[in-house]
Amino acid sequence: MNTVEIIRKKREGQALSKEEIEYLIQGYTNGTIPDYQMSAWAMAVCFQGMNEQETADLTMAMVRSGDQVDLSSIRGIKVDKHSTGGVGDTTTLILGPLVAAAGVPVAKMSGRGLGHTGGTIDKLESFQGFSTELTTEEFVDLVNRIQLAVNGQTANLTPADKKLYALRDVTGTVDSIPLIASSIMSKKIATGADAIVLDVKTGDGAFMKEEEDAIRLAKAMVSIGKLVGRNTIAVISDMSQPLGYAVGNALEVKEAIDTLKGEGPEDLTELTLVLGSHMLCLAGRAQTAEEARAVLEQCIRDGSALNKLKEMVQGQHGDPNQVDHPELLPQAKEQIVVRAEQEGYIHRIQAEEIGLCAMRLGAGRATKEDQIDHAVGVVLHKKVGNPVKKGEPLATLYVNRNEMVNEVTQRLLQAIEIQTRPAQPPKLIRAIVTPTETIRL
Amino acid sequence: MNTVEIIRKKREGQALSKEEIEYLIQGYTNGTIPDYQMSAWAMAVCFQGMNEQETADLTMAMVRSGDQVDLSSIRGIKVDKHSTGGVGDTTTLILGPLVAAAGVPVAKMSGRGLGHTGGTIDKLESFQGFSTELTTEEFVDLVNRIQLAVNGQTANLTPADKKLYALRDVTGTVDSIPLIASSIMSKKIATGADAIVLDVKTGDGAFMKEEEDAIRLAKAMVSIGKLVGRNTIAVISDMSQPLGYAVGNALEVKEAIDTLKGEGPEDLTELTLVLGSHMLCLAGRAQTAEEARAVLEQCIRDGSALNKLKEMVQGQHGDPNQVDHPELLPQAKEQIVVRAEQEGYIHRIQAEEIGLCAMRLGAGRATKEDQIDHAVGVVLHKKVGNPVKKGEPLATLYVNRNEMVNEVTQRLLQAIEIQTRPAQPPKLIRAIVTPTETIRL
Repeated sequence: MNTVEIIRKKREGQALSKEEIEYLIQGYTNGTIPDYQMSAWAMAVCFQGMNEQETADLTMAMVRSGDQVDLSSIRGIKVDKHSTGGVGDTTTLILGPLVAAAGVPVAKMSGRGLGHTGGTIDKLESFQGFSTELTTEEFVDLVNRIQLAVNGQTANLTPADKKLYALRDVTGTVDSIPLIASSIMSKKIATGADAIVLDVKTGDGAFMKEEEDAIRLAKAMVSIGKLVGRNTIAVISDMSQPLGYAVGNALEVKEAIDTLKGEGPEDLTELTLVLGSHMLCLAGRAQTAEEARAVLEQCIRDGSALNKLKEMVQGQHGDPNQVDHPELLPQAKEQIVVRAEQEGYIHRIQAEEIGLCAMRLGAGRATKEDQIDHAVGVVLHKKVGNPVKKGEPLATLYVNRNEMVNEVTQRLLQAIEIQTRPAQPPKLIRAIVTPTETIRL
Repeated sequence: MNTVEIIRKKREGQALSKEEIEYLIQGYTNGTIPDYQMSAWAMAVCFQGMNEQETADLTMAMVRSGDQVDLSSIRGIKVDKHSTGGVGDTTTLILGPLVAAAGVPVAKMSGRGLGHTGGTIDKLESFQGFSTELTTEEFVDLVNRIQLAVNGQTANLTPADKKLYALRDVTGTVDSIPLIASSIMSKKIATGADAIVLDVKTGDGAFMKEEEDAIRLAKAMVSIGKLVGRNTIAVISDMSQPLGYAVGNALEVKEAIDTLKGEGPEDLTELTLVLGSHMLCLAGRAQTAEEARAVLEQCIRDGSALNKLKEMVQGQHGDPNQVDHPELLPQAKEQIVVRAEQEGYIHRIQAEEIGLCAMRLGAGRATKEDQIDHAVGVVLHKKVGNPVKKGEPLATLYVNRNEMVNEVTQRLLQAIEIQTRPAQPPKLIRAIVTPTETIRL
């Protein structure tokens, strides 16, 4: 097989065969195909796209490029959830315990990642002593015993995806539905998921700003799942403002605990229930989303969901007492209230800006080497559509380093747009994409 | 400036500024922009194209990437000719002496190159002792004295183009009109041309198989010339069959001598006169193509063109006696006649196959290290449209190594298509592209 011929074929808009895609990905992983050929191919894909079979073939070629996690010793259907990323997205912290409480095994591998706040692992490390470096045996044992564990990624998973993603990042080839879809799905499949629920964000604070793009991405991923035998469903959800109120690691843990008690923010609770319902259905724990939702609501009401979080914290060597007493989680030295400078209605809360404010305070990493401060962040007090009086609190900054406060305050005030006329809250759940249909809500 | 932003801008179909193009080419030349970014950009150009100003800016950025030959000490307007390459194209060997005889200075830099036969320099080395390693002073002096010299390229000319071309070759990004046009024009401008006549080939044996593509390429190059102040004109000529009859180094020198005597093949003579006429017009030696043609025909009739070749051979330390006695040029050991296996009319002579046959006999290089055999090659006896009898000679092989003869004979017979119905000879000159118009003939 000849790499230039494969690039030319894609350039001319032809579909590549499974063998050609395998040749590219294997060659790129082992270094026989250089970066400059792969980037030319990626740019050709940006223009010509890939059909559903090619996208699925690319996904599985990337899965085979490295190790694959074997979860077969865990009983039951392992359903994983993936969110395309947003601001203040605490759903994983809530969904794990909630779905596990309903009897569905959750064996989650997670990363640290760069961004506004840490990854799920960083957030969980707000619990004193919490370990995400379990051996595979400990991890599997814990899931079999309590249905829930969250572990760091140690294996050499999808090296082709890592290498290709880094290349796309520096060659203007990130924005491509089949390349994004195969990147996400390859990681989920390599970590052993039998079925996958996707939360595809749309709006200002999301990677997919436009709802139609989010739906296209969702369709591409659901199609991959179908073609490779992993039942997959996608929820398109709003990220035009931050989800919930908290943006920051321990602050989001606190919000997750509230939500597991049934006292969480309305939008966060609703999205968690929608995603959790689909997870239960895919796991065969419920026949319909309505039935699943009733099970989950019961788990919140009877305290079993909160209790599951405690079991996991204990099982992973953390301090479960912090679940009952969130005031024992890392606390910032100072709280600074940012107040409204005018009366009116909240028309817009720029999610990305709020995230960057939390990052400036120390909640996230700009580079891999940065240390995260678990205590700091931003807690909003308003959502889009809320009325607000002059002088009323818009947000509270949780601060350990005073030098950022002025800048962050100004950016927050800019990011929260107040107008005199009333505003409608955005619709939270925009669409559901299943292997057979797209339901727009 | 940011390379990823520039790639994205081109991906989105926007025009790049002069500064952005300069940044790319400078960075690529000095190694701060890696191959993988340049290949992604080149692929984006393949899809989005470049406008005339961008193409001109790219050309001049490549010119500035290395040395530029200064021909200012040569009196008169220096007109260069470039052919986009074909089979049996001996025009340079004829045009140099012919145009110089008419009083226009020809200071030609040439290369060796890979292909069916050697480059112009290899062909000229058929003359015993001929040197193409003149110092710049010798070169300029010779042109000022006799109006003609052909020298090898020693300076570091257009390194950006060399690097980019090598990259395009392995990333499926060769076929792009603005990239091809800027590559050709940058080399001509760097070697000091004041004005340029382009011979853009079209047909089976050419890079541009389709006439419309050849015209698009010609327009792009003429536009570059206009924007950078080098008067440029392009002739679109047929390369559906080899030009003239000879394909091979000394064989083509012999054919050039015949043509300078007025005894050359009709098509080669005609194309040379057309190209030469435009060169005289651009040099200000004639007002119209008709007037210029009359001057050139006179130079052939009065022997001054042939004499100019002798002066050059002598001036470059070759044996001028070989001009008067071409039988003293390198001679192959054996001549093998390939005869028609059926009666009819020649419908097709696959130029590229004929070229490959000559190369198999040793006339060209497949790799830089290959040695050229100046004596060997193919001389055709027929052109498309000619009638042929069974057993009549179609071609003569000039051979020094017998082992290739059977293969080459079979390929030649395959490449020359004979049918019973009469055939029309192809039109030689298809179009003329000037800065103001495209004249289709």
